[in-house]
Amino acid sequence: MKKLINTPGTLLTDALTGFAAAHPALDVDVRRRIVTRAPTPGRVSLVSGGGSGHEPLHAGFVGPGMLHAACPGEVFTSPVPGQIHAATTAVSGGAGVLHVVKNYTGDVLNFALAAELADDDGIEIATVIVDDDVAVEDSTHTAGRRGTGATVLVEKIAGAAAENGEKLAVVAEIATEVNARSRSYGVALRAGTVPAVGTPGFTLAEDEMEWGIGIHGEPGRRRGPIAPARDIAAGALDAIAADMPLEGEVLVLVNGMGGTPLMELYVMFAEVTAWLEARGVRVARSLVGDYVTSLDMTGCSITVMRLTGTLRDLWDAPVETPALRWGR
Amino acid sequence: MKKLINTPGTLLTDALTGFAAAHPALDVDVRRRIVTRAPTPGRVSLVSGGGSGHEPLHAGFVGPGMLHAACPGEVFTSPVPGQIHAATTAVSGGAGVLHVVKNYTGDVLNFALAAELADDDGIEIATVIVDDDVAVEDSTHTAGRRGTGATVLVEKIAGAAAENGEKLAVVAEIATEVNARSRSYGVALRAGTVPAVGTPGFTLAEDEMEWGIGIHGEPGRRRGPIAPARDIAAGALDAIAADMPLEGEVLVLVNGMGGTPLMELYVMFAEVTAWLEARGVRVARSLVGDYVTSLDMTGCSITVMRLTGTLRDLWDAPVETPALRWGR
Repeated sequence: MKKLINTPGTLLTDALTGFAAAHPALDVDVRRRIVTRAPTPGRVSLVSGGGSGHEPLHAGFVGPGMLHAACPGEVFTSPVPGQIHAATTAVSGGAGVLHVVKNYTGDVLNFALAAELADDDGIEIATVIVDDDVAVEDSTHTAGRRGTGATVLVEKIAGAAAENGEKLAVVAEIATEVNARSRSYGVALRAGTVPAVGTPGFTLAEDEMEWGIGIHGEPGRRRGPIAPARDIAAGALDAIAADMPLEGEVLVLVNGMGGTPLMELYVMFAEVTAWLEARGVRVARSLVGDYVTSLDMTGCSITVMRLTGTLRDLWDAPVETPALRWGR
Repeated sequence: MKKLINTPGTLLTDALTGFAAAHPALDVDVRRRIVTRAPTPGRVSLVSGGGSGHEPLHAGFVGPGMLHAACPGEVFTSPVPGQIHAATTAVSGGAGVLHVVKNYTGDVLNFALAAELADDDGIEIATVIVDDDVAVEDSTHTAGRRGTGATVLVEKIAGAAAENGEKLAVVAEIATEVNARSRSYGVALRAGTVPAVGTPGFTLAEDEMEWGIGIHGEPGRRRGPIAPARDIAAGALDAIAADMPLEGEVLVLVNGMGGTPLMELYVMFAEVTAWLEARGVRVARSLVGDYVTSLDMTGCSITVMRLTGTLRDLWDAPVETPALRWGR
């Protein structure tokens, strides 16, 4: 196994130490593994978290206009309830906290337990479960669909709504709407390697790729010979369109899985755009890059969200986080 | 070879098509292979370029506060003089154009020829050659040192000076100063694969890494067993410190080579920061991520720039490009 680490056992601590040094505007508690920023009194706060190995998700999305806190677990391991509870308490501004949770069994359970603890403290919690992946109905890690690329969209758009001073119920409703209007599909050319394991999560032949992959190296839909970018885009979009009619204006995220060069992601984005526009769907907003990764997996996921005017305006609102930032 | 492409022959065109669709604020001429934004009349403009395969460099740095134009060549191949000349003409605002050129033989030659053509048109050109890599004195592709990570710093800081309305001679002097105050050193755990070739540029054993690597897969200083992040940071910084005394405030860039997860780059940044601060050097500014890549190479480069108050202020100035953006 070749990685730029000290030891697998210190990976998360070491990475958080570096993250803290690189982003002094955020509060990083390396021991308790929570990344926070100060809440705005009287406003809703957003907390997310999940296993590490998907960077920049989630800590890279803490900042004005997006999350208030992130709780990273060990690699591919859910954060624990006490950790999520500590983050929730730290960023509560008195108007309630939205938990953004990817649909993995451990995450859902531990966020639910943390929500009960917060409720005991008198902090109102709403939860949105992100389950945008159309590839498989159940998986090694989930009952129902997996949460993948749409997590970024939920965190950005709900974060903007919270910033605007919307009440918890409204912020939660918007988050739910983003998830409901989003679908994702991923492919892998090579599996990632969990440092504590030391070998790739699965093995593909030199001329083989995996269709319908998740972000933990769990099995996808099928394997097949490596295909041109155009066919990969079409395969992913066929799967998405079979599940949600594509029309009007959409936001597209072409997301790298950690080991794929940016140049290839732009090739994929060109093909995704061409496919959609040939069918009368307008790509009004986009994001191309590594946002929800799977360690050093080679591959990409494609997320399509059907926009509304309100969702587009919230997407366009200023954001200032380590991994996503723009102004007016 | 496993890549998200259509064919090696269409890779650059396809990627530029995607880049154009993703970044409608920029003008992308896919046929002529130039990416531009409108110049400000009476202000200096900045043009850079080089072989593709190093994305987001350079097109990802076109935008307010940074470059005015980028000219991508084929993968690992210099842009041609006519292309550079076209870009220069397109963005000339009447106050001269700075060419930012990485020190590779083909790039230096072709930018020099383009500068002559521009001079014939009455456009005043200044050139800064970036040669920050301390690893090797001459290489397969260079006479003298290679230009690597410092290119981002030169483009950002000289771009801010141009935005401030400085004259060409001053912008060029600042660019030269940034290069003179910067040193880089890179390592690779796995070589990248040029699509048109189809196999990795070099082969390392499963327990081996390459020290002092460049951005084209050319040989570095030496090979050795894979080392912990702490030792890699120390080795790189020893090499840098042997060449330029490290003191006062510095800016550190920990740059991924395209195939390295962000989590590992933060581990490297933690070790680089610890090494420097133990020696009384303060890391006042930083950048962690993929900025000057080498296709899907696994590894990283470390760049250290000794700051001055002026350079720090220019670094902090607003910038709005696809790959680097922040406001006030």
